[in-house]
Amino acid sequence: MEFVPVWIENAWYVAAWASDIPENTLFARTYLGVPVILYRTADGTLTALEDRCCHRMAPLSKGRLEGDAVRCMYHGLKFAPSGECIDVPGEERIPASFRVRRFPVVEKQNLAWIWMGDADRADPEEIIDWPYLDDPAWPYKGGHLHYNASYQLIIDNILDFSHLPYTHKNTIGTSNYDEERPHLEHPDFGIRIEHTVDDTPLAPMNKAFATFEGNVDRWSFYDFYTRGNVLLGDFGSAPLGAGGHKGSREGALQFRHFTVITPETEKTAHYHFAHPRNFGIGVEGLDDKVIEYIYAAFHEDKDIIEAQQARVDLNPHEPMMAISADKALSHIRRQIERIVVTEQSPPAAAE
Amino acid sequence: MEFVPVWIENAWYVAAWASDIPENTLFARTYLGVPVILYRTADGTLTALEDRCCHRMAPLSKGRLEGDAVRCMYHGLKFAPSGECIDVPGEERIPASFRVRRFPVVEKQNLAWIWMGDADRADPEEIIDWPYLDDPAWPYKGGHLHYNASYQLIIDNILDFSHLPYTHKNTIGTSNYDEERPHLEHPDFGIRIEHTVDDTPLAPMNKAFATFEGNVDRWSFYDFYTRGNVLLGDFGSAPLGAGGHKGSREGALQFRHFTVITPETEKTAHYHFAHPRNFGIGVEGLDDKVIEYIYAAFHEDKDIIEAQQARVDLNPHEPMMAISADKALSHIRRQIERIVVTEQSPPAAAE
Amino acid sequence: MEFVPVWIENAWYVAAWASDIPENTLFARTYLGVPVILYRTADGTLTALEDRCCHRMAPLSKGRLEGDAVRCMYHGLKFAPSGECIDVPGEERIPASFRVRRFPVVEKQNLAWIWMGDADRADPEEIIDWPYLDDPAWPYKGGHLHYNASYQLIIDNILDFSHLPYTHKNTIGTSNYDEERPHLEHPDFGIRIEHTVDDTPLAPMNKAFATFEGNVDRWSFYDFYTRGNVLLGDFGSAPLGAGGHKGSREGALQFRHFTVITPETEKTAHYHFAHPRNFGIGVEGLDDKVIEYIYAAFHEDKDIIEAQQARVDLNPHEPMMAISADKALSHIRRQIERIVVTEQSPPAAAE
Repeated sequence: MEFVPVWIENAWYVAAWASDIPENTLFARTYLGVPVILYRTADGTLTALEDRCCHRMAPLSKGRLEGDAVRCMYHGLKFAPSGECIDVPGEERIPASFRVRRFPVVEKQNLAWIWMGDADRADPEEIIDWPYLDDPAWPYKGGHLHYNASYQLIIDNILDFSHLPYTHKNTIGTSNYDEERPHLEHPDFGIRIEHTVDDTPLAPMNKAFATFEGNVDRWSFYDFYTRGNVLLGDFGSAPLGAGGHKGSREGALQFRHFTVITPETEKTAHYHFAHPRNFGIGVEGLDDKVIEYIYAAFHEDKDIIEAQQARVDLNPHEPMMAISADKALSHIRRQIERIVVTEQSPPAAAE
Repeated sequence: MEFVPVWIENAWYVAAWASDIPENTLFARTYLGVPVILYRTADGTLTALEDRCCHRMAPLSKGRLEGDAVRCMYHGLKFAPSGECIDVPGEERIPASFRVRRFPVVEKQNLAWIWMGDADRADPEEIIDWPYLDDPAWPYKGGHLHYNASYQLIIDNILDFSHLPYTHKNTIGTSNYDEERPHLEHPDFGIRIEHTVDDTPLAPMNKAFATFEGNVDRWSFYDFYTRGNVLLGDFGSAPLGAGGHKGSREGALQFRHFTVITPETEKTAHYHFAHPRNFGIGVEGLDDKVIEYIYAAFHEDKDIIEAQQARVDLNPHEPMMAISADKALSHIRRQIERIVVTEQSPPAAAE
Repeated sequence: MEFVPVWIENAWYVAAWASDIPENTLFARTYLGVPVILYRTADGTLTALEDRCCHRMAPLSKGRLEGDAVRCMYHGLKFAPSGECIDVPGEERIPASFRVRRFPVVEKQNLAWIWMGDADRADPEEIIDWPYLDDPAWPYKGGHLHYNASYQLIIDNILDFSHLPYTHKNTIGTSNYDEERPHLEHPDFGIRIEHTVDDTPLAPMNKAFATFEGNVDRWSFYDFYTRGNVLLGDFGSAPLGAGGHKGSREGALQFRHFTVITPETEKTAHYHFAHPRNFGIGVEGLDDKVIEYIYAAFHEDKDIIEAQQARVDLNPHEPMMAISADKALSHIRRQIERIVVTEQSPPAAAE
């Protein structure tokens, strides 16, 4: 399986947590290789423009907001939220070609979603709807990591939980989690993975939260959406004999998990996540405590994945040996490749 | 307009301030991609040699001065100021091919000028003569910046002052400076730019120096010499009604400005400058105060130009959109390109 | 003489001092471009495996020892000291192709020697035998340097001692050391160099150790082995009139020197050395004092060689000018090139 240094262009990707972009601020970040600024117009609406003036390529992120427009602080060109250049100091007429790219961007459920591909194909209705991001009954604090690794290696990681007992033995792993292979389904949007392990110890991190002792029936269900690299999870641990995920789930320790990976460049990525829980609503400090544990676990992933990237870089054409735990990730790699090939193919000539 | 990753070889470039090279010192710097050492012989004359021993390529800058010669401190080869190898320890005969390149270098008006091209064409008479660098009536302190950007992007900057109200709004800019386009002339040596703005506020930096209040008539005249990238300026602000640059200039705040850009590598450069003034002669601390303001303004340029270089590097073949303020820089880019093409063309065969 | 960016594969190279690899430790280092882990099995025997899991390329150096085997801590694959994969969690059958490379490694005279080439050709009998590394009558403390330079430039350095009066004027050089060229012999294994200088001052470093004063007769004899880049030296200084190296050597200051250079990547290398002495046996702190002096001298080499590498990189195709002091290094460069060409040539077809 070879490393594919490309990505799907036509998809909604998470750009940032909405709260990362306060008013009166130019927020700069690179997505799919393109530098972008995000900011809010007077009514609070998000705008996304290419972070490069069309005149001499100075970054607009070094510019200033003037009402709803952005002025480049090199030679003073000014751009409307549409990307159109509306002022060239000392110039009376402005050619229509003077503009920067603007990207569709939508704020939804505390996240800013951006579309870097063909703007005509951007349909906000296609943005994932996941109410747990916006539900007081499922509190959480949002997280973000910057990766020095290809988004593909990160997807590989989240699609194969057989690494839990090894990479995460001290945090979210349990010793026999890898003994049974998960059940896979192949919906159009990507993959559905159902992994249950009965009679297993609580993961070390969960000991801090559980109100029960002893072994549990554990489940990890998740859907992965290939466009946007979104993972939506239903994770839980129920006391033995309570029926696991099929039981009443009353008293079970439950999390809804959200992870989304946005390629930054060929070998870097942004990683946003949330880990809403069904317990300790309103308990002071608990949001912080949960995310602190999650950061600990995710830094374990980051550490091994960045080291893996360095090894891949040494011998980029070396084949990897597939094991049956790779079924999900192989399926998604093939799906990405198919979409990328289609996107990059020239359209067929009309008869 | 595409980035041209080359430079004019046959020109006098500023190597350093003469005071940067005291006696008994090897001063090392790279010009036009070539590492060079500069030092003084016993009579104080400057010498410039390639900073690379012809034997095993060790840098001579790690060597030692022995009288007028330089000894490589790897295996002990010794080179005369002519570049000729005059000692190989343990060897009786030294082949004539044992030498390092020597470069014409001339000290003039506090500067060291170097010629990196065809030494036979180096005529010291062609070095710019600018008496303000050497005139007690026009005091100054010389400055130097190292740029992580192509010399071309820096030339672009100094040939288009429409960036003053934006990049330099807090230092040397004034709000309406970009409203009128400058008058251009096209002498053989490069370009002459005359920019006057009447009834404009004093630039923020100049408020610290002026003895008058209120608006001024401001002028910026300069000549740019394409060979050597030298800018010679006549900048001033006169009280309203005193006739501006055409008036007596008595009581006006006047500066003579000198900027010269020497390519170091394809994407780095040395920038030397002086800002002689006609006021406060002999006032203690004023040389420092003026250059401190200039450094503040020039760091604003450096900040945006280095950011611009990073964006150009992301998409080096992306076209830039020209505005009328680019006329001067476009003229000079074309002139550089013509000279470079001529220099790099093989000579025509004799009939 | 052009830089050859390759190395001999079929040779025993020093991997580390044996004491660098204690029990229960994964020791990671790169040799000849290949990342390797070294560790000890229960009986203390050294094992060397490729530091890259065959599954997803995670480094095994981030794994854990389990008895004599290594478990990758990404997805849990486990490898025997043979390189064979002996466990894939959740998998019943393991394909024979699941393995990592194992490299012959031998512990001898306090050193770990590794063979990165064709394992079938690795004969431990060919490892250099040098009893001084293991003889209480010749105490020493082993040293190690990491070089940001090609191993070839380092070999050049140790094969031409005419640099001593220059690079090492304050440590191990003496002023007239370069006046006489050494005597060379050309055994099959590489080169033998005999350099004697009569009536010369003691090297600055040796003044701290000698029990006699005044000038000395100095000798430096050494054998360089092209396979493995091993230098074995017999260095000494005897009081004037005692017959130098041919005399009784009683009371002379004697060192046996060991230097070995292992390519890490094209432009980096590991340098191990020892400097056993025949005096001050059992004197507290003397091992440290001697190696401190040697480190001082060797950092002088490292400084000039890394600067030389930077100059070579600027103009990699520039020819170097040979002097007669280069005879030994030129001989070895040619010998390396011949072996490399042979190793890289396809085998002749059978008739």
